[in-house]
Amino acid sequence: MSKPLILVTNDDGITSRGIRRLISLMQQLGEVVVVAPDSPQSGMGHAITVGDILRLTETDIYPGLQAFKCSGTPADCVKMAKDLVLKSKKPDLVVSGINHGSNTSISVLYSGTMSAAIEAAIENMPAIGFSLCDYESSADMDHVDEYVLRIAKEALVKDMGHGVALNVNFPAKQKESIQGIRICRQANAKWQEDFDQRVDPYGRKYFWMTGNFINHDKGEDNDEWAIANNFVSVVPCQFDLTSYHAINLLNDDWNFE
Amino acid sequence: MSKPLILVTNDDGITSRGIRRLISLMQQLGEVVVVAPDSPQSGMGHAITVGDILRLTETDIYPGLQAFKCSGTPADCVKMAKDLVLKSKKPDLVVSGINHGSNTSISVLYSGTMSAAIEAAIENMPAIGFSLCDYESSADMDHVDEYVLRIAKEALVKDMGHGVALNVNFPAKQKESIQGIRICRQANAKWQEDFDQRVDPYGRKYFWMTGNFINHDKGEDNDEWAIANNFVSVVPCQFDLTSYHAINLLNDDWNFE
Repeated sequence: MSKPLILVTNDDGITSRGIRRLISLMQQLGEVVVVAPDSPQSGMGHAITVGDILRLTETDIYPGLQAFKCSGTPADCVKMAKDLVLKSKKPDLVVSGINHGSNTSISVLYSGTMSAAIEAAIENMPAIGFSLCDYESSADMDHVDEYVLRIAKEALVKDMGHGVALNVNFPAKQKESIQGIRICRQANAKWQEDFDQRVDPYGRKYFWMTGNFINHDKGEDNDEWAIANNFVSVVPCQFDLTSYHAINLLNDDWNFE
Repeated sequence: MSKPLILVTNDDGITSRGIRRLISLMQQLGEVVVVAPDSPQSGMGHAITVGDILRLTETDIYPGLQAFKCSGTPADCVKMAKDLVLKSKKPDLVVSGINHGSNTSISVLYSGTMSAAIEAAIENMPAIGFSLCDYESSADMDHVDEYVLRIAKEALVKDMGHGVALNVNFPAKQKESIQGIRICRQANAKWQEDFDQRVDPYGRKYFWMTGNFINHDKGEDNDEWAIANNFVSVVPCQFDLTSYHAINLLNDDWNFE
């Protein structure tokens, strides 16, 4: 039996610690091809490059692997990997990460890591985005390895549903071992941003966006609860944004005549 | 009674024809504040600016209106409008557009126009993204006015549901008048991208991404069908990406022990 083909990408850039760890783990499971951004793309959401050029360059930074750096966004990486690198070979799994920082709850919308996974899901490729809830670039990652492998192995043999991508988040390393894996819904939480105003050397004001995470969700079936309780969270995500209950509301109450 | 407060933004930039038309329509309904990108931001998806500075500059291009150009993405515009311009005043409606080009079906994910509306929905502000299914910058827009007003008027008096934003698309102008408004789900269609490879003056290759829209959806309750049949499509959108049916699938069939 031939080895499964695994496409690895991320949003922190092709040389980040997280993607290096993910590549080395995926090499235990299959044939790995890497197509990742040539520079950090955090917060890019599901951006794609229209109206500007894209570059795709083979690199030898991962000896023995086919690896390409891409000038575009994480979603661009998946599109270019599919059409220009893998061509007729459909990957058995697309993995993105390991992101340096949380992508739980509403952050899934802003996340470049998850946009790559969702782009793969649009193409009906099984896909997983992995994120570590620790923003330190030197964060300890030893505790995630067995869980990355366990989830990826299941994804290679089980169906995750048509057009679904998994959003996997790991708690930051704690004294106690991880409690296990929880299948969750996206928590109802959000960022309360804060703009730090400064003045540049030319006397013009500018801003840095910072923010605090506000969790209003009282449930225990969501990804924020899982992470707060030292579980790995797994949220299956879809790309149909239709609010079906709002369709009924609009049909019943609104008048467009 | 005081006039409703309406925030206007877009992704084509603060001087585009579409936003100028939307501003002038919204002035018929309320007090308008404009916060829009200082340059085109098409295809930006739900990107936000992290790790870089943001600028927000008041401009007098719309005499009599409070208007600001923002160096960031459409989602940044809504965040900056809320925190730095409107402050304690919550808008009664946030409108984005009128986009030059379709945002039906899967394009909602890539759309800067809709990311602004969804960002507003996260803040529980009623929000609508308007797009014209015509990519010509000089496209005829006369036929959309009455529908923009009709939908915005309803949104000012009716509830669209918590955390919902409407994705409104208009057919390109045809000989026949628009047939009416259809409340729809997002069609199951996607872009099949195509990379046009070229060589720069320095001998290095680069790519332009182009694409063809592929519609596999056989239904008549979706936005593609509506546009193809000369209706205005209205899709209520949400920001919870959880695939609830996949939660059951994972719980039943996957083994994480």
